[in-house]
Amino acid sequence: VSLVENASPQLPDVMAALVGHTTGARTVGVTGAPGVGKSTLVGALVSSFRRRRARVGVLAVDPTSPFSGGAVLGDRVRMQEHALDPDVFIRSMASRGHLGGLAWATPQALRVLDAAGFDVVLIETVGVGQSEVEVAGLADTTLVTLAPGMGDGIQAAKAGILEVGDVFVVNKADREGANQVVRDLSAMLRSAPTVPAPDSFGWTPPVVRTVAHRAEGLDALVGAIDEHADWLVSSGRLADRRRKQALDEVEALAAAQFVEQARVALGADREELAERVATGRLDPYTAADRYLAARRPTESV
Amino acid sequence: VSLVENASPQLPDVMAALVGHTTGARTVGVTGAPGVGKSTLVGALVSSFRRRRARVGVLAVDPTSPFSGGAVLGDRVRMQEHALDPDVFIRSMASRGHLGGLAWATPQALRVLDAAGFDVVLIETVGVGQSEVEVAGLADTTLVTLAPGMGDGIQAAKAGILEVGDVFVVNKADREGANQVVRDLSAMLRSAPTVPAPDSFGWTPPVVRTVAHRAEGLDALVGAIDEHADWLVSSGRLADRRRKQALDEVEALAAAQFVEQARVALGADREELAERVATGRLDPYTAADRYLAARRPTESV
Repeated sequence: VSLVENASPQLPDVMAALVGHTTGARTVGVTGAPGVGKSTLVGALVSSFRRRRARVGVLAVDPTSPFSGGAVLGDRVRMQEHALDPDVFIRSMASRGHLGGLAWATPQALRVLDAAGFDVVLIETVGVGQSEVEVAGLADTTLVTLAPGMGDGIQAAKAGILEVGDVFVVNKADREGANQVVRDLSAMLRSAPTVPAPDSFGWTPPVVRTVAHRAEGLDALVGAIDEHADWLVSSGRLADRRRKQALDEVEALAAAQFVEQARVALGADREELAERVATGRLDPYTAADRYLAARRPTESV
Repeated sequence: VSLVENASPQLPDVMAALVGHTTGARTVGVTGAPGVGKSTLVGALVSSFRRRRARVGVLAVDPTSPFSGGAVLGDRVRMQEHALDPDVFIRSMASRGHLGGLAWATPQALRVLDAAGFDVVLIETVGVGQSEVEVAGLADTTLVTLAPGMGDGIQAAKAGILEVGDVFVVNKADREGANQVVRDLSAMLRSAPTVPAPDSFGWTPPVVRTVAHRAEGLDALVGAIDEHADWLVSSGRLADRRRKQALDEVEALAAAQFVEQARVALGADREELAERVATGRLDPYTAADRYLAARRPTESV
């Protein structure tokens, strides 16, 4: 996983070596705004999956880490109870801020954990918005976590969470306002979205209440995750989802490699292009054409 | 702007036509978690800039819109007071969910508004995390907005906001807990980040209190934005930042066009590649190589 995070030059060899050694581990994404208790929930889920003897991996993906390396350390502290369990692997992973970093690095880390024999991999993301949508694209089952007192229903809808959630979790369900969050959420889920996500066809996302730090509601939550996993298989959606995931990964990787090759080929011309576009003397499409031309083998070799 | 949002085939011609017609409008990014009052703050900022007769554009960028088109409509309702002002342009913009959509489409919309004579463009983003960091890369000055009761200090640090903010706004400053937010934030800003962002050298981000719906603190906020704009020019950072922005835009655009060309060249082979990678029979690097090979002119024409 360190090789993945550091974009090691050996990565292509590692990935090639893993061919035929993956078994298709289940992946569960856990998203939600800061403060809803995602890390505590992930810790409780690890305990639940461990009770049925599954080997569990946790990837805490922090898309902002190019700026603030190591910021998710606090989460790992909260998951200390699992630190000595050899069948639990917990890792915070920065996505480097490179073009599509989250999109190509996370699936590679998943592949490593899968090949290493982990049955379930939980992907926890920091923040909402783009990263939430991306994680939903990486996981088989996406949990969207909410909590009382974190902003009203309109705000929730704004963040686009309704369409990416396979299971909704109202955490801190012992707090004031929890019933209101469940009601608002259920009402929004009933009013059909104008553009339904293809994967949501035939699956009605349940709303589960939890108090993660006391492990309350965890059985119901794991039950809902299992039900979704069964539905993915029986509906044929799992294969669709994974083909889509693979295509996204490959295209993000190809795009990143293309830009890298073009940068090398352009050399110092990049600075001049940037200067001319920045000062309004060149349009971005003409500049992009230079990138596209630069890595043609006849010119770049 | 509609042409940009819809990725119109005429876009390259439009961008080429704008060459020489931009004057370098000031751009101010407004970020923060859902519920902190970003839209109200943006509305108040529009009023403030209008009082000095600046023409103001607002781009509300919603990175999640591929799923929930039109979700930010609520924001536009809140900015109704400016709806009839011909010198204010307000537009919600989806980033389409395409590879690097936010990265290449937003600068193009900015360029259109700049050429149309807008002096200041406010970029409001929905959500935190990746989109926040991306908006910080697009704007000259980035405001990070917080509010009491939206999660503790550790959560704020987790979201990586400290490093992207040029000016911090504690909105809803009349509410309980505002002083604590200001104290926590100031303490975190004082403890130097382990990896300082290059642009933050020589600039200490101020913390400004506002009650946006009553326009309280807006003069101080606009003053802080002006000060940062002056510093950008005097320190030479503005030119650096804009070269960096231009390079990011061009590379995101080139990458998107590369993938598009490769998709066309690969045709039905894409599905087979996806299937083989998804089932662990092919590694993603070998698959990516097919993309890189596919658009070589000799093979793709």
